[in-house]
Amino acid sequence: MHSKPTNIATNDLVDFALFLADSSLIMGHRLSEWTGHGPMIEQDIAITNIALDLIGQARNFYQYASELINNQDDKKITEDDLAYLRDASEYKNLLITELPNADWAKTIGKVFFFSAWQFYFYQKLIYSSDKQLSAIAEKSLKEVTYHVKWASDWVIRLGDGTEESKKRMESAVEDLWPYTGEMFVAANFEESPKNSVSIDVSNIKNDWLEKVKLVFRDATLFLPNKTWMQSGGKNGVHTEHLGYILAEMQFLQRAYPGLEW
Amino acid sequence: MHSKPTNIATNDLVDFALFLADSSLIMGHRLSEWTGHGPMIEQDIAITNIALDLIGQARNFYQYASELINNQDDKKITEDDLAYLRDASEYKNLLITELPNADWAKTIGKVFFFSAWQFYFYQKLIYSSDKQLSAIAEKSLKEVTYHVKWASDWVIRLGDGTEESKKRMESAVEDLWPYTGEMFVAANFEESPKNSVSIDVSNIKNDWLEKVKLVFRDATLFLPNKTWMQSGGKNGVHTEHLGYILAEMQFLQRAYPGLEW
Repeated sequence: MHSKPTNIATNDLVDFALFLADSSLIMGHRLSEWTGHGPMIEQDIAITNIALDLIGQARNFYQYASELINNQDDKKITEDDLAYLRDASEYKNLLITELPNADWAKTIGKVFFFSAWQFYFYQKLIYSSDKQLSAIAEKSLKEVTYHVKWASDWVIRLGDGTEESKKRMESAVEDLWPYTGEMFVAANFEESPKNSVSIDVSNIKNDWLEKVKLVFRDATLFLPNKTWMQSGGKNGVHTEHLGYILAEMQFLQRAYPGLEW
Repeated sequence: MHSKPTNIATNDLVDFALFLADSSLIMGHRLSEWTGHGPMIEQDIAITNIALDLIGQARNFYQYASELINNQDDKKITEDDLAYLRDASEYKNLLITELPNADWAKTIGKVFFFSAWQFYFYQKLIYSSDKQLSAIAEKSLKEVTYHVKWASDWVIRLGDGTEESKKRMESAVEDLWPYTGEMFVAANFEESPKNSVSIDVSNIKNDWLEKVKLVFRDATLFLPNKTWMQSGGKNGVHTEHLGYILAEMQFLQRAYPGLEW
């Protein structure tokens, strides 16, 4: 039922853009599941706004990736083809973005860990010699700064809250921690000199960890012990959850390619 | 499992505020079902933004309704109690807001008919002697003006589009038309002199119909013939769809009252 081939010839720069696009899209899509189901109208609105920011960021990165692909191969790939017509093994999103929301504490944990990573990553990306990536990073950073602040406040409120909320926040951190390691292990496309982006992910790790420690101190939470870290997302190896997300997200485009009614 | 009684003693002004809150909330909730499922990322973002605007409007009306209730009865009802803990028969939303999205054309039809109604209704509400309703109407009107423009453009694009899109838009109009009559039949709480709001709904009907005709002309669509009009929403008589929406929307609050984790 595909209208276009999904086996897109990529290169490191395209992969790099797709990695950022996919991570934002899947995170945004997951968070949007809260819309109309949040514990309070106020938070329902807040998390949907965050989801929208992320989907907007994804859109910018997909547009750029499609430009790169089309210029190279004289194709007519659109942002929607990239978002809706690839298979799970072509997605490069961080695994943490595809994990189920579970309860509010786990959702907050995901937003906190992910947004803090985005914050330090985009802060480096601003200085990329690739003008378009730099511009998207700068625009996104304003949004992400707010996401980190919002999620940090919630981590503190839950961690340093009631007995129940603390227990839930601790359990969320425990569950999510193994998915944070992947952020700081560079994929080939991140290290490639050819992608004109040079980001030292170990450097980002230090900044990220300092931020986590700071927020955890106020939240009276402990850092988990060293543990085995999950990986694979950046290279297309995903949990079973991504398949379900894509099935739902891609249904319309795959059933009715180019649909506009 | 209720944490608070839902049999709230209301009066005409409270009912009036709840009518507007419920209509916006249910419409916003329905539209948010598109998030991550829109035919194109761009439209996905647009419709989610509209959903968010509507949920924000609902929140303002719920806050005002809860103030009125609490001042009168010395209760501590919150906006969330009103949004999440009432039964279907207490909801006063227009029936058109609870109808399933079905396809893109029907969703567009719903947004167009509903937003155009909101537009003319809020334009009158601005002149209410009730300062808070007037202020919410004024703030909302800026958003609704954009919604009407967006939906009008889509009605024209689909109506004056491909054979398939025209067929779908015609069928959407046919299905939705019987749900538009209710907008212009005043409920008791709309006519009551006690609610300090005086809006002549027949006046609104004329403006609304002119707008519909104008857009339909550009869309090469015909107005449906006179038909039997559905009613009941404003007085708590709903389609079976509302029950499903509320079950989904209220699950968390009813299962875990006051939840914050």
